[in-house]
Amino acid sequence: MKIGIIGGTGPQGLGIAKRLAIAGEDVIVGSRKEEKALTVVGEANEEIKEHNPKELVGMANEDAAAAADVLILTVPLQAQSATLKTIKENAKGKVLLDATVPLETAIGGPVSNPLHINPGSAAERAAKILKDADVKVVAAFNNISNSHLANIPDPIECDCLICGDDKEAKEIASDIIEKIPGLRSIDIGPLNKAHLIESITPLLIGMNIKFKSHYGGFRITGIDFE
Amino acid sequence: MKIGIIGGTGPQGLGIAKRLAIAGEDVIVGSRKEEKALTVVGEANEEIKEHNPKELVGMANEDAAAAADVLILTVPLQAQSATLKTIKENAKGKVLLDATVPLETAIGGPVSNPLHINPGSAAERAAKILKDADVKVVAAFNNISNSHLANIPDPIECDCLICGDDKEAKEIASDIIEKIPGLRSIDIGPLNKAHLIESITPLLIGMNIKFKSHYGGFRITGIDFE
Repeated sequence: MKIGIIGGTGPQGLGIAKRLAIAGEDVIVGSRKEEKALTVVGEANEEIKEHNPKELVGMANEDAAAAADVLILTVPLQAQSATLKTIKENAKGKVLLDATVPLETAIGGPVSNPLHINPGSAAERAAKILKDADVKVVAAFNNISNSHLANIPDPIECDCLICGDDKEAKEIASDIIEKIPGLRSIDIGPLNKAHLIESITPLLIGMNIKFKSHYGGFRITGIDFE
Repeated sequence: MKIGIIGGTGPQGLGIAKRLAIAGEDVIVGSRKEEKALTVVGEANEEIKEHNPKELVGMANEDAAAAADVLILTVPLQAQSATLKTIKENAKGKVLLDATVPLETAIGGPVSNPLHINPGSAAERAAKILKDADVKVVAAFNNISNSHLANIPDPIECDCLICGDDKEAKEIASDIIEKIPGLRSIDIGPLNKAHLIESITPLLIGMNIKFKSHYGGFRITGIDFE
């Protein structure tokens, strides 16, 4: 199984890519420009080589979407729609993990949620854009901090909530998530719950700022998931 | 310090009341009708007497508000506004912990947030209603399950997020919360963050339903709060 990280050269995408490569997965890092992907991947492979990873491969986003079996979207909200349109054709029938979070940080202002006044979620928007390409969208990785992902090889002591409308796609997502040491995947239900997952991110970012951390996350307590 | 639980005869209010009485606090349980408060308090005192509590006292909500130094509001969203209006005069200048959560459970349907389309939160609404009475509102207890509160004497392995605009009021809230074994109070900032706290509750309720539990909660990880 090949995993393609769409918009994978930012800290979130690259963090996930490195972690999965170290876990032995075949990972393609996609970027708007192939050249950028190749440069970033070259540096990343050098950085993580002591951990005996599978080598990361760089491609343009649309080629990564074609070559991979499962896609992970890691772009800012503002780029979500445009990016999905460029890969839609090549993503047909595939599973897409959407890590997009509706964040809008005003300088010095509070971290807010621009979708708050417009019910729904980034993940549901992705599903809508990709609808006629039969892409199975799963909200995932929304609550995992970039700093945590970059802090290789320390385990990430966090739960990763996911949701989606396709059971098999969620199983694939969980398998991928749990390849990263420390992460536990919890399926909270259908895709229309994505706003509940996405709204935890501004909470964690606000706590990180207030308490001077970069690693805020959470573990669900009181529920036996076995 | 006397703690008055406004709307305290429901499972949430009574759970908090019992826990705090066992912790040695003076607790007044308020109800719309004094008679109801007296009946419920009589039963509750009997139930918890083996834990050597301070004896719970029952009063009408408005009398509880007058007699107590700190108030905890535990009513359904639908009753929040009307209840606050009845105690407003007697609550002047006091601290009020608001545990109200915007929940609306359609039968068999998803747990939704009726305020989602109308930015803000139940706690901000409380502050607005109480504004000219100089009441210091703190969002608190929103994420702690009733079943957990009732599960005496087991500790509640959960974090309790709070927020508010008055530092001293938040310190009082934290002191009260941490009298309950297991609970850790985390101040996430000003009252305009309350929607972030309140939106975790439908997430936890949904998980409780999906995974057949009553005790869903969470611990924040990766942040050193000392």
